[in-house]
Amino acid sequence: LRKLHRVSEVLQQARSYAALPPTVRVPVQEALGRYSAELVVSSFKLPPWPKSVVDGYALRAEDAEAAGPSSPVALKLKPGVVRPGSEQRERLSPGEALMVETGAPLPEGADAVLPVEDAEEREGKLLVFRRVARFENVSLPGEEYDEGLVIAEKGSRVTPAALGALILEGRRDILVYDLRARLLNVGDEIVRGTYFRPFTHYVIAAWLQHHGIRVEEISVAGDDEEEVKRWISRGEAYLTLLVGGTSMGGHDVTVKALESLHPEFLAHGFAVQPGKTACLAILKGRPILALSGLPVAAMSTLEIVLKPFLRELGLRLPEYPRVRARLTKRLTVKTGVVGFARVRVYEEGGILYAEPLMVGGSGSLASLLRGNGFVIVPEDVEGFDEGEAVEVQLYGEVAKRHG
Amino acid sequence: LRKLHRVSEVLQQARSYAALPPTVRVPVQEALGRYSAELVVSSFKLPPWPKSVVDGYALRAEDAEAAGPSSPVALKLKPGVVRPGSEQRERLSPGEALMVETGAPLPEGADAVLPVEDAEEREGKLLVFRRVARFENVSLPGEEYDEGLVIAEKGSRVTPAALGALILEGRRDILVYDLRARLLNVGDEIVRGTYFRPFTHYVIAAWLQHHGIRVEEISVAGDDEEEVKRWISRGEAYLTLLVGGTSMGGHDVTVKALESLHPEFLAHGFAVQPGKTACLAILKGRPILALSGLPVAAMSTLEIVLKPFLRELGLRLPEYPRVRARLTKRLTVKTGVVGFARVRVYEEGGILYAEPLMVGGSGSLASLLRGNGFVIVPEDVEGFDEGEAVEVQLYGEVAKRHG
Repeated sequence: LRKLHRVSEVLQQARSYAALPPTVRVPVQEALGRYSAELVVSSFKLPPWPKSVVDGYALRAEDAEAAGPSSPVALKLKPGVVRPGSEQRERLSPGEALMVETGAPLPEGADAVLPVEDAEEREGKLLVFRRVARFENVSLPGEEYDEGLVIAEKGSRVTPAALGALILEGRRDILVYDLRARLLNVGDEIVRGTYFRPFTHYVIAAWLQHHGIRVEEISVAGDDEEEVKRWISRGEAYLTLLVGGTSMGGHDVTVKALESLHPEFLAHGFAVQPGKTACLAILKGRPILALSGLPVAAMSTLEIVLKPFLRELGLRLPEYPRVRARLTKRLTVKTGVVGFARVRVYEEGGILYAEPLMVGGSGSLASLLRGNGFVIVPEDVEGFDEGEAVEVQLYGEVAKRHG
Repeated sequence: LRKLHRVSEVLQQARSYAALPPTVRVPVQEALGRYSAELVVSSFKLPPWPKSVVDGYALRAEDAEAAGPSSPVALKLKPGVVRPGSEQRERLSPGEALMVETGAPLPEGADAVLPVEDAEEREGKLLVFRRVARFENVSLPGEEYDEGLVIAEKGSRVTPAALGALILEGRRDILVYDLRARLLNVGDEIVRGTYFRPFTHYVIAAWLQHHGIRVEEISVAGDDEEEVKRWISRGEAYLTLLVGGTSMGGHDVTVKALESLHPEFLAHGFAVQPGKTACLAILKGRPILALSGLPVAAMSTLEIVLKPFLRELGLRLPEYPRVRARLTKRLTVKTGVVGFARVRVYEEGGILYAEPLMVGGSGSLASLLRGNGFVIVPEDVEGFDEGEAVEVQLYGEVAKRHG
């Protein structure tokens, strides 16, 4: 048996050969969930000037310092009302007040707004019945939106709030990574249709889609090295995924095809359980990942090899929610091997429990359906004892009781 | 001022008037992330028969009980090899062994498989050098896939694993909820183009999209009750969202239009901060939500009114990851009011801190960009003290240090 590669070492080596995906400019309205390829920083302040947040009277706080319910201060009331959207800033002299509506720019010289209910107009004067703090009822420049806010970082996904900020900045488009994938299902029995309903490639495609990676092609090839090679060479997408034909014994047409393309980097066989037959190659700077056709092994490779690899490159693939839960039974993995252990997390009496679902091995779609999360057991850990608290990554909702 | 409605009461009342969304049949390949409208349960076992998981010899465990490295047991070796995909079950009599490949059906009568390396063929006999446990190296029926597994529940989203199971079941389509939304931006200043880059409706649309709700239309209407009414009546989508024109004082054209349509249910004004001017109506069984045009108020209404409402109806909208973090300063909300408090969660010295970002109020897009999560302060809680641990819902990644 060949030596298995440590995942951490492979990722570190592969990283130095891999290029980032190409970039593409997309309209802002279509950018939600895309990975930004540029740092976007905000460029102006809102409000641009101090603004009233109530209907009331703009004044200088110091002019009303002596005001009280029974000892009102009289200010000179300037005629007119400042409305929101006024283009021209008004001006107040000491001892003056001016009516302002909610959202109106504060006149220059004023530093507070007294709500209408706390004052009274009388013969061109404003009677002020209480003190008012500086900046009371005033929204200061930059409170709503400010210069220098990070709207999108390189590699981060565009969020709803970021999309709003891009529109507010007047941006029409944004540079994002062109993160497309092609998928090839390898196997004579799949081409001939004798394999009973192949489905793992759909699970893989759905995983990619869920992580914001567009699957632009799903094809099938027989156990034919030349055919697999030709298909790989034909593609333009950044990511290439090959499903099946990765055995470390006989059935390894996929790995042979990859090797014969002379990639800059290739590692076959990972110290991961399940998913040890996976193969990661870098060809012309682009990652090619070959995975098992067994669903749990494939999922393990996606979570333990592909996701950390893309995150190391700076693409912030979303993480699942993590919870700590107590194991209902012992969970063991071979030493020196990273374990991908499916669990079902449920709550009982306010405590979270994680039930290991090791049964059935790498082919067990049942364990993925029964389970709602997984535990990644590090290389240097042999496992965890019953009752021990482990960190679970949840891909489904916590169950309400033991089911 | 009108009395504000308690959110919990409104949701309970509205629920009894609301119908579930209509359903639609979609091809399985397009079902990822859709909300299932049917309970799908698995219908068969895989493997259908016991299966070998190694290359080796099928035998009866009891026949090899006496075997040891220096005292091999000799079994009668039946000629031939059972390959994976063999249609016909072989049969073993006591004292017999038969070669099987990985994935091959176990012959009837056999109950274990001895790996090739632990045996030796000699003159038509198989020498067995070790004992083997019953079912060792055998995958039992149902281990990979079983009858009665829940593939999709009513109201749950179709996951990658569920999609694989649907394909495995031979399903071509699945009944899902037709969860579409229409969005109307209300305001003369938006129609006239004098409003400075309106963006809140894009944030709302992106939020809906992120939660698996398709936004099929975004339109604009002036402050004209009849125009708003006509637009609402024209729609076919399950969800209708109206942005702006919801003031509890003057500018409330949206609410007036809603009232004049005589919905079965309408509540205007929520005990929520920010987002108190929101309005929820049920018209012909379909929810119509009017929200503030201010981004934080709108986000608060989406998280505190719309998400719980749809979840109560049985649509399992995804939840954000939750973490407990210590407040870096006091966080207060008016009593009797649900608070939507933006925070920035960061890690320092292995401890998670949550910095409240209350500045700027309901218009502060800055607080949504600076922050990465929110705390929902219940109606009966006035707030939390500095240093207190609070539950934060994270819409972004935890920051690495105070930023």
